[in-house]
Amino acid sequence: MNLSKRIESMQFSPIRKLNQYADEARSKGLKVIGLNIGQPDIETPSVFFESIKNFDSKVLAYTDSKGIPSLLDSFIKYYNNLGFNLNKDEILITNGGSEALLFAMLTICDPGEEIIIPEPFYTNYNSFSDIASVNVVPFKTFAEDGFRLPSKSEIESKISPKTRGILISNPGNPTGVVYTREEIKMLVEIAMENDLYLISDEVYREFVYDDLTAVSALEFTEAEDRIIIIDSISKRYSACGARIGAMISKNKTLMHTALKLSQSRLCSPTIEQVAAAGLINTPKDYFYEVNREYANRRDILFDCLKTLPDIICQKPTGAFYLIAKLPIKDSDHFATWLLREFSIDNKTVMIAPASGFYATEGLGEDEVRLSYCVNQQDLKDAANILIKGLLEYKKIYV
Amino acid sequence: MNLSKRIESMQFSPIRKLNQYADEARSKGLKVIGLNIGQPDIETPSVFFESIKNFDSKVLAYTDSKGIPSLLDSFIKYYNNLGFNLNKDEILITNGGSEALLFAMLTICDPGEEIIIPEPFYTNYNSFSDIASVNVVPFKTFAEDGFRLPSKSEIESKISPKTRGILISNPGNPTGVVYTREEIKMLVEIAMENDLYLISDEVYREFVYDDLTAVSALEFTEAEDRIIIIDSISKRYSACGARIGAMISKNKTLMHTALKLSQSRLCSPTIEQVAAAGLINTPKDYFYEVNREYANRRDILFDCLKTLPDIICQKPTGAFYLIAKLPIKDSDHFATWLLREFSIDNKTVMIAPASGFYATEGLGEDEVRLSYCVNQQDLKDAANILIKGLLEYKKIYV
Ligand SMILES: Cc1ncc(COP(=O)(O)O)c(C=O)c1O
Ligand SMILES: Cc1ncc(COP(=O)(O)O)c(C=O)c1O
Repeated sequence: MNLSKRIESMQFSPIRKLNQYADEARSKGLKVIGLNIGQPDIETPSVFFESIKNFDSKVLAYTDSKGIPSLLDSFIKYYNNLGFNLNKDEILITNGGSEALLFAMLTICDPGEEIIIPEPFYTNYNSFSDIASVNVVPFKTFAEDGFRLPSKSEIESKISPKTRGILISNPGNPTGVVYTREEIKMLVEIAMENDLYLISDEVYREFVYDDLTAVSALEFTEAEDRIIIIDSISKRYSACGARIGAMISKNKTLMHTALKLSQSRLCSPTIEQVAAAGLINTPKDYFYEVNREYANRRDILFDCLKTLPDIICQKPTGAFYLIAKLPIKDSDHFATWLLREFSIDNKTVMIAPASGFYATEGLGEDEVRLSYCVNQQDLKDAANILIKGLLEYKKIYV
Repeated sequence: MNLSKRIESMQFSPIRKLNQYADEARSKGLKVIGLNIGQPDIETPSVFFESIKNFDSKVLAYTDSKGIPSLLDSFIKYYNNLGFNLNKDEILITNGGSEALLFAMLTICDPGEEIIIPEPFYTNYNSFSDIASVNVVPFKTFAEDGFRLPSKSEIESKISPKTRGILISNPGNPTGVVYTREEIKMLVEIAMENDLYLISDEVYREFVYDDLTAVSALEFTEAEDRIIIIDSISKRYSACGARIGAMISKNKTLMHTALKLSQSRLCSPTIEQVAAAGLINTPKDYFYEVNREYANRRDILFDCLKTLPDIICQKPTGAFYLIAKLPIKDSDHFATWLLREFSIDNKTVMIAPASGFYATEGLGEDEVRLSYCVNQQDLKDAANILIKGLLEYKKIYV
């Protein structure tokens, strides 16, 4: 029985493909420290679990496809605190930022049309565009300059009559880049001058260090019809399992039309919506603590990488990932080797080969993505194993 | 700013389009009894809410994309009780049956390919095929014979080189039809002889009356590679808001490949998965009681319809819907009229015009879909209002 070409051509999650070797390592009694996934270990605010315990409806019914009013209100309040004025018809609650991304692509692109994305990028951008039969057209960004955006003309050279939008992650997964106001402004201008949408995936908005702030594309009111924000509570409140996100745009026609997509799958999970609505009451301290914790982790990991001069990596300022360019040829092989052949004190480390984050064949083969979602002690151990492992590996293979 | 043609051509939920008139009626002080939606009023088994109260992880993490092991096990046990032996790699947990339907279409069809569906059908089959850029090719079934399947040759006449599968809802929304073993067998044969998949949406499996049983397509092991089952806890346990469903197939390659879709959206809601896993311990009595309740409601509604000889409707035997053909020209107009102009004792009724359930333009315009998800007293009132309203409406408009 044949399957569709589209499903055949989709990729399995590149961050999970080393799982079998990790399992093998564990079955040999090793502790595997995971720097491969973006699952925060930070506690979800307790108000979430309290709301769940207080849920007292006897029938677990569908909700409005748009999302329950209290959750919409809590997003409105959250954006208000950021200085943005949103109305109820400018937000749709989605099953995580994931579904918001798919909805955005489906709403602006027909099959065969194109979205421009700086690479390396969050791998599921590929998956959603495969589902929507949309072509990803990448433009390159580089470890050497911390994955800054290239020039306007460089980006514009990727535009074709089929281009419908530009998609960015800011702060960036997998790079940890935080774009400046000038960079976002340039993208907004490109969108306006070329009649494109700008999809700004801002699910890591809270995770910005060194006294920087993430610039939201919402600031650019002159282009508000073209801007779609992807949001999520997954990382903000360490509530990944809630599957609550949002698609946001000031373009009311677009939002009204996207409601058809929401209606098709009826609604987002009811109990998690109710509980998520309460998260707006999370104390400010929570964010402060979490932010400081991540900044410290970033420093631990980055400082350790910097002990080897042939690792290329600019200090990342956002999200909880970085991409490091290593003095090796095949990071897939290196990541596998670490799990199968290398350990210190019965511990080894799992990292994500970066080629899966690039659309252009051949790019990223000497790079790895590291996340810092583990506690500081584990992170120190992991960084140490990585560095020592790299030295050892170079002796054998380079 | 242009939107995609695909989103422009999608339809808004036809069952919700009369909402504004219902709101108007309510603001005039009328009670609106809803026979328009499939939201059961039955209580969710208490074990679901107990599991939620006992949830005690401090971090609400992503789960495995396939679903948590305990939930997969509970589906396996449930199918075992039905006499089917399933393995873990033959099930994927999805965000409701809705997502399972989308996954099934994406897995077997490329854009421009075709799925054959008996009409009238669940309207979101249209939505999912629009999302997947798949064309729905309908074949007709009729109120006069209770929406039985037509002949094999009639169905086969719809097959083209682009056809990839047949999709049915059994027991049927919106018709209430329950297909016989012979009918399913015919579809299985068509699938085998024409190299097609058979997607069998069995989310209403428990809702079958008059001592009938729903025949699952899983029984036809000779075609197991071609069969995809859509399942959900929404209706089975009156847990619509949990957004937990499943895609099931014995075709392991297909299931393994569909996992890419699951991975792309990370996972289904964690807490609802945990709670859903406990539902397997729902006492048998629950199903017995619920089934009896629906059978009684079906009788109340059907008997009332039968008091008017010019209503065409065979007694439905499954799900909690029926389609009635009325002696009028435009059921959209009639449904609106009921809400705006007709009431008895300060009550009126909201029904779903059936044209939205047909793909063929012009069909269903004299039909309505009625659901019986309201308590018996409301149902009696609603049926009475409908009948009296119809008599009154005929005097004015027919
Ligand atoms: C850049 C980016 N966008 C969106 C998502 C989707 O997350 P969720 O669906 O949990 O909101 C992720 C998850 O890791 C991500 O890294
Ligand atoms: C025939 C049919 N299939 C699938 C669904 C999807 O339901 P859910 O996504 O809640 O499982 C419905 C909902 O009404 C339905 O009627």
